[in-house]
Amino acid sequence: MSAPPKTEPIFDKIALIGIGLIGGSIARDARKRGLARHIVAATRSAETAAKANELKLADHCGTDLAAAVKDADLVIVCTPVGACGAATKAIASSLKPGCIVSDVGSVKQAVIADMKPHIPAGVHFVPAHPVAGTEYSGPEAAILDLFQGRGCILTPLPGVDTAAADRLEAFWKALGSEVDRMDPAHHDRILAITSHLPHLIAYTIVGTADDLGGHLNSEVLKYAAGGFRDFTRIAASDPTMWRDVFLNNKEAVLEVLARFQEDLFYLQRAIRWGEGDKLFDLFSRTREIRRALIHLHQA
Amino acid sequence: MSAPPKTEPIFDKIALIGIGLIGGSIARDARKRGLARHIVAATRSAETAAKANELKLADHCGTDLAAAVKDADLVIVCTPVGACGAATKAIASSLKPGCIVSDVGSVKQAVIADMKPHIPAGVHFVPAHPVAGTEYSGPEAAILDLFQGRGCILTPLPGVDTAAADRLEAFWKALGSEVDRMDPAHHDRILAITSHLPHLIAYTIVGTADDLGGHLNSEVLKYAAGGFRDFTRIAASDPTMWRDVFLNNKEAVLEVLARFQEDLFYLQRAIRWGEGDKLFDLFSRTREIRRALIHLHQA
Repeated sequence: MSAPPKTEPIFDKIALIGIGLIGGSIARDARKRGLARHIVAATRSAETAAKANELKLADHCGTDLAAAVKDADLVIVCTPVGACGAATKAIASSLKPGCIVSDVGSVKQAVIADMKPHIPAGVHFVPAHPVAGTEYSGPEAAILDLFQGRGCILTPLPGVDTAAADRLEAFWKALGSEVDRMDPAHHDRILAITSHLPHLIAYTIVGTADDLGGHLNSEVLKYAAGGFRDFTRIAASDPTMWRDVFLNNKEAVLEVLARFQEDLFYLQRAIRWGEGDKLFDLFSRTREIRRALIHLHQA
Repeated sequence: MSAPPKTEPIFDKIALIGIGLIGGSIARDARKRGLARHIVAATRSAETAAKANELKLADHCGTDLAAAVKDADLVIVCTPVGACGAATKAIASSLKPGCIVSDVGSVKQAVIADMKPHIPAGVHFVPAHPVAGTEYSGPEAAILDLFQGRGCILTPLPGVDTAAADRLEAFWKALGSEVDRMDPAHHDRILAITSHLPHLIAYTIVGTADDLGGHLNSEVLKYAAGGFRDFTRIAASDPTMWRDVFLNNKEAVLEVLARFQEDLFYLQRAIRWGEGDKLFDLFSRTREIRRALIHLHQA
């Protein structure tokens, strides 16, 4: 895929706190598209910083979070959800008045609760969630066009500066994303259904199969193409990121999980009692959902 | 992918009972590779037969199952698992002495129990399961090279003619499959783990998400890329085929399902009590399983 031609930079300086799959991909894309005159990054791990510098993801990547955000017009916290609060605290006193602070967390209510208390007056906090990624993680996983054609959800809080939210939206659109805005609680519920529950189920089934496999393990891997393989990709996603997602979107995840369990017991009972029509009806309905999805050009 | 050069036919005449995704793909592949001098097919549905003839999948496709198997050296029953018994009964008296009868069912013990009583003396029954497919079904879904590089499991019964089993194995190898032999009960357990449970879970989660979505449904589809989408592909698989699989591999499916439920409740409890280490440990282990799978060149 080719990037659109370079345009006038939207920001003079962008600072990325955290430079893994998401932060690194933002850096690559923003540079290629000329969205900022300077892009710096910072991470607490010297090893990760060295790797990011070796890969030339940003102009420079250091380990001093506060130093990185100096004079930045846009600061994006790209750490796992559970580290957003501490990262914001670390940079708070160095933020330029009038700058925009955002994040990329898959959970919005908990991240807002963690970050907002540290945001100084005069700094515009606009939470965001680019719904994109791969099963890989770390700076080496950063790729161009990761956000192209993918959704990005902004959850601006009441009273936020409109111009700041619009500028962040323009940035994500320039990365190729389709931007939506919604309430943080609504975001957390939608994502619990479309992303968090599927990941939890995939992690579970891969673990169960591994346990059940036992000495059959090589056979389980060998015949993974029968359906299991699709789950292993999702279940290879970053453990730290996903631990934090589940711990921080607990209520919504437990709610959809309870519904899933109920539905699974319904099918389990249908299998036990040989009620083929119940199985057939559901399987026909889910086939239609796939068709609707393909129709939406997402599949 | 290009097919290997045509070789000497393995069979003079092959008859396929059922001409959907699997039967149709066998016909396409066997013709292209010159594995038989004649390939005929039969299905109970006149509409399906007309479609198969229009697509020229076999030399001819009719609706008289018994007529199709006359003089055939290899008969493969390619119906859904639940229809194998009736199909075998319908063709039994027309089978040529010394011919091989096989199937493609995803369940072996139940299919053997249904088919075996109808197999006449002097006919060689060699059950088989090509572990291959797509989420599409019907004659239109038949594609070349569907079995290339995929596993095919033979479950020959004690006392079966060795030469017949070897000939069937040669046929599947000529279609590009890697052939294994195992006990029917062992097959059913392995497939319950690697294929049947993943399909059941995918069907369930897609149904749950659809219900939960409600008026949010378009948003569920819009943000499906966060993980849900991978499940919709599996949950679009043929409803009749899968209903039959679950009803006919009941014991093994219920057993692995119970284990899955137990493991899911363990994670649910860890989320509720904020036990991040339990989540992290599992998520790290499942990531390793993906790596092992990639290492096996299957992913």
